[in-house]
Amino acid sequence: MWYVDEERLEHIAIGAGILGTGGGGNPYYGKLHVRRLLREGARIPVVSLDEVPDDALVVSVGGMGAPTVGIERIHRGDEPLVALRALEEHLGRRATHLIPGEIGGANSTRPMAISAMTGLPVIDADGMGRAFPELQMDTFAIYGVSSTPAALADIYHNVVLFPRLADALTLERYARAVTVQMGGAAGYAFPAMSGAEAKRTAVPMTLSLAEAAGAAVRRARREHADPVAAVLRVTGGQVVFRGKVIDVQRRLVAGFARGVVELDGLGDDRGSRMRIDFQNENLIARRDGDVVVVVPDLICLVDAETAEPVTTEVVRYGLRVAVLGIPAPALLKTPQALAVVGPAAFGYPEIEYRPLPGIYGGDRLVGERDGTEPSWPRSG
Amino acid sequence: MWYVDEERLEHIAIGAGILGTGGGGNPYYGKLHVRRLLREGARIPVVSLDEVPDDALVVSVGGMGAPTVGIERIHRGDEPLVALRALEEHLGRRATHLIPGEIGGANSTRPMAISAMTGLPVIDADGMGRAFPELQMDTFAIYGVSSTPAALADIYHNVVLFPRLADALTLERYARAVTVQMGGAAGYAFPAMSGAEAKRTAVPMTLSLAEAAGAAVRRARREHADPVAAVLRVTGGQVVFRGKVIDVQRRLVAGFARGVVELDGLGDDRGSRMRIDFQNENLIARRDGDVVVVVPDLICLVDAETAEPVTTEVVRYGLRVAVLGIPAPALLKTPQALAVVGPAAFGYPEIEYRPLPGIYGGDRLVGERDGTEPSWPRSG
Repeated sequence: MWYVDEERLEHIAIGAGILGTGGGGNPYYGKLHVRRLLREGARIPVVSLDEVPDDALVVSVGGMGAPTVGIERIHRGDEPLVALRALEEHLGRRATHLIPGEIGGANSTRPMAISAMTGLPVIDADGMGRAFPELQMDTFAIYGVSSTPAALADIYHNVVLFPRLADALTLERYARAVTVQMGGAAGYAFPAMSGAEAKRTAVPMTLSLAEAAGAAVRRARREHADPVAAVLRVTGGQVVFRGKVIDVQRRLVAGFARGVVELDGLGDDRGSRMRIDFQNENLIARRDGDVVVVVPDLICLVDAETAEPVTTEVVRYGLRVAVLGIPAPALLKTPQALAVVGPAAFGYPEIEYRPLPGIYGGDRLVGERDGTEPSWPRSG
Repeated sequence: MWYVDEERLEHIAIGAGILGTGGGGNPYYGKLHVRRLLREGARIPVVSLDEVPDDALVVSVGGMGAPTVGIERIHRGDEPLVALRALEEHLGRRATHLIPGEIGGANSTRPMAISAMTGLPVIDADGMGRAFPELQMDTFAIYGVSSTPAALADIYHNVVLFPRLADALTLERYARAVTVQMGGAAGYAFPAMSGAEAKRTAVPMTLSLAEAAGAAVRRARREHADPVAAVLRVTGGQVVFRGKVIDVQRRLVAGFARGVVELDGLGDDRGSRMRIDFQNENLIARRDGDVVVVVPDLICLVDAETAEPVTTEVVRYGLRVAVLGIPAPALLKTPQALAVVGPAAFGYPEIEYRPLPGIYGGDRLVGERDGTEPSWPRSG
């Protein structure tokens, strides 16, 4: 067990921004919220998956809504807590552990805020190992954890409960429609699962990975080393392009920010172009028309000098960026997972998923800790 | 207590169609469903409000969605039952009585179907005494019954529960958004209220009124008398125009059928025009530009010969109709009610509500039964 302190919080926010792959919402406001709670004396314990009893009641909490709304609208911050309490009341049982639904972006910090309010430990794992635009795209749903019962709450503490729905995709549709009515942003609590289910389905060590990535970036900045290289060492990624943003097309479609970023090469990449398609998160990177990185592998834009993450909502003409390709966690690369988070699921049936070489940083941390070679571990 | 039989069911369907004031959905499919259940041996007891114990648990059940969808989409018919069971589970208590949310249109028959499936009695009363497009427009909400907890279910038995929302308008927005995702139609169960609350807030005797109106129409048709005159005698209404439909404008806006019907006068009304604005239900009737009937008073189009109701979804060029103006129930005419169901609430702040003379048929039935003069009874 370890505790989140202010320094680790800073690191996690940087790392979560990078793992957000352009989306997932900005962790900045969540970070400020958690920092305030820490300064007020809150303690936020983090436990690893192995420390969770099989009969624990693990609940994922966070926020739902388009990132563009997240920027414009200040939340109260206790919406996920209201959702959690409604879910507990429905279950007739209290949660024992919290888990992030996605480590990428704003949902990395929200479980910490709810931990500070409730005293519940946060599990060092999540349901994506990155960020994705839709809720059925988490490993909990992919590997058979029921998405319902589920609860949503808005800033006025209005609560909507989904006791039982056919599947995660139905929850995505119904919850998304309610979220739009809630002003575009809602706090959520779902799924509720046993400790055994969490151990079988969650992507392990991802809070640690975010923390390590953020710490490496800050150390490199402080020591005038290369922050981008530092990210690569921790995450297992590579730089697939360096260039300047020359065009951004962005539109809000059915609550999602969809669009395209075009880059003109710099340095070794001079004379080449890169085009990145996104839907909240970056999905496909093409170099001079050739596909080089494909979802679920992570495509992360970071500032070329500082490695500060550049999200799809703030990317703009003239920014000089490095495009990172980071191998996806093993749990996202099974046939079961690729059916839900592979290129076809995002509307690119013509693109084949060819995994980037290397090992996702979180999987590598598991291997380092338990002495095993990282492999494609558990499946549902 | 009385029982719904096939003949009374026929009458209720006709009467409910007229009281639907152009909207509320067609009672036809619901009637077929209830008739099948009756033929299979079901018994459907109807009790008056006075027979309901104060500590009863009364739940309103029915269907939500645009009438246009209702025509195109065949329901399973047990959606409101699934919603009811989810609501009961949430409350930890079983319902003792059912009550229609609106007597006008399809929601007149749905509680009878659920009664047939559960054995629960239906109360001879409803929340509107007619039909309205939005759920906060019922007398339960107007006179302070909490709209939540509330439940929705779709044909796949997906359930959405609203444990607590700020008000009925919020439920209307959230439930409408979910209903659209449910394919445009859902079964609902809400509000849940005590017997005392039902007695204080429901519009009394409206199943009896629909039954009496339908019976009078059928008797007149059989005896070659005037079915339109028969409707007037029972409901307390008057004919405000006779004419031919010369234009219909209709569009589906945010789940509602909005539009205008234009009539050219016949008989005594030759040379005059009538224009009727509707939003699912008929709202404002103007004769040569002068407002003659205003919501919440009922504006009902019926076939000039047969008194068959003509709904806004089937009204078309060439139909010869009588336009009936029926005084609204007393409970819809208080200042509290007019704030929610008066002309301003429908976007006509410039139109003053001047009540039609006469007494709503349901209120008159109460007076006939208990020997009192009908008056503006209880308020919230």
